[in-house]
Amino acid sequence: MKKAYVHGYDQRENIRLQDQASTLVELLHSDTKYPAGSRVLEAGCGVGAQTITLAKNSPGALITSIDISEISVNEARSKAAAAGITNVQFEQADIFNLRYEPESFDHIFICFVLEHLPRPVEALQTLKKYLKLGGTITVIEGDHGSAYFYPDSEEAHNAIQCLVELQRRAGGNARIGRELYPLLSHAGFKSVHVSPRMVYVDSSKPQLVDGFTKKTFTAMIEGVREQAIKTGLIDQNIFDQGIKDLYRTAEADGVFCYTFFKAMGNK
Amino acid sequence: MKKAYVHGYDQRENIRLQDQASTLVELLHSDTKYPAGSRVLEAGCGVGAQTITLAKNSPGALITSIDISEISVNEARSKAAAAGITNVQFEQADIFNLRYEPESFDHIFICFVLEHLPRPVEALQTLKKYLKLGGTITVIEGDHGSAYFYPDSEEAHNAIQCLVELQRRAGGNARIGRELYPLLSHAGFKSVHVSPRMVYVDSSKPQLVDGFTKKTFTAMIEGVREQAIKTGLIDQNIFDQGIKDLYRTAEADGVFCYTFFKAMGNK
Repeated sequence: MKKAYVHGYDQRENIRLQDQASTLVELLHSDTKYPAGSRVLEAGCGVGAQTITLAKNSPGALITSIDISEISVNEARSKAAAAGITNVQFEQADIFNLRYEPESFDHIFICFVLEHLPRPVEALQTLKKYLKLGGTITVIEGDHGSAYFYPDSEEAHNAIQCLVELQRRAGGNARIGRELYPLLSHAGFKSVHVSPRMVYVDSSKPQLVDGFTKKTFTAMIEGVREQAIKTGLIDQNIFDQGIKDLYRTAEADGVFCYTFFKAMGNK
Repeated sequence: MKKAYVHGYDQRENIRLQDQASTLVELLHSDTKYPAGSRVLEAGCGVGAQTITLAKNSPGALITSIDISEISVNEARSKAAAAGITNVQFEQADIFNLRYEPESFDHIFICFVLEHLPRPVEALQTLKKYLKLGGTITVIEGDHGSAYFYPDSEEAHNAIQCLVELQRRAGGNARIGRELYPLLSHAGFKSVHVSPRMVYVDSSKPQLVDGFTKKTFTAMIEGVREQAIKTGLIDQNIFDQGIKDLYRTAEADGVFCYTFFKAMGNK
């Protein structure tokens, strides 16, 4: 599973994930608040990009944050300590091989993880075992097929498609956001509710132009440049034009749209 | 301008527009309320699909609803009368050739009109003349490039593209929604604010599955079948498969996404 990841493990990616979390934190996380005393499992915490927000929004909850990567877990732990977070326990663990007692958790939270997994329904079914009856699961994923913009650009769509294809080859699905309803339903969760979180960016929102269009989305696509060109997925000039066109959407008359999907289900 | 329209003039289209308005009315219109005594121009009322909602939400406003088509205006007038609406005056008129005094209106409302116009910025500039200083314009448009779904289907995208292309050939732009910010800005409106209204449909929302995915969006694409095939834009089998695949997104595990854009600006 670990080597199937497209992003998440180098420093530039870490910065991007942090930028993403701090720009989108309100949009994605402000309505997730767990009661004091509840036990929460964060499955796939990575470098802790979401963990600090999660912990601050639910200061009385007892959060266990796991990731398959020891390096990521260590970084997440340091970051949380530096932020004064005391209600999170970090552990290296594989979602498919957990050693908790069944029905140990009141709530499960999983963000930007399913997109990397070859068998997302099985992951959800596995996690469900550790959830108490009546407990909730919250899933957040992006969808790169939801990106559209003005001015439009075929080259920009081609460049985005490189990331989608590389993630697919690594066993993931960069357009998984739209599938959260069927995924959670198939995994047996009840009362599944999906709430799309659209990021709409024009120049009246300079913070999102910089924080999302440029530093989150376009930077992420730029991040696969060498791999995309080396594997022959795209001509270098087309890719570079695509990136230029994505930055063009950040100018005064440009518009950029992207949608994250947040789903909740009950056991 | 009149003959450039792709839809709006036959009975089936009228039913679709009504379906659309009654399904989406809350999403699109609930936050448009004009003060008592204010003069409002609805530019391009068509058969009145939006007018009744507009009038009911602002019962004290004095609304003038115009359309270039005499037939549509007459139908809108009858419909409003049947609904007991008394605060709307209907007139046949061309946006580009109005006979009102400059600065006659406190507010302008224009919905699903710019998508059909070859020169949307000029239309907005023209309308601006009739708006009082400090008055507002409200613009609502869809964007067919914002449609994505699960299961995904290349044929469905091809079928949608037929409507986009036919509308383009008729001088319109079926993907204008994302452009509202630059359009209003270029027309000289101030404090432009765009609010996307995403329609997310899964089977937990049977009313939207039926009212939007099937009877609004897919019916609209189906509506260009003969023209698309006759003009050689697409192979019949591919088009029909595309429509089948759009209906497929309305099944229990399907998902359909579409975004309308609502913009407001000040003079």
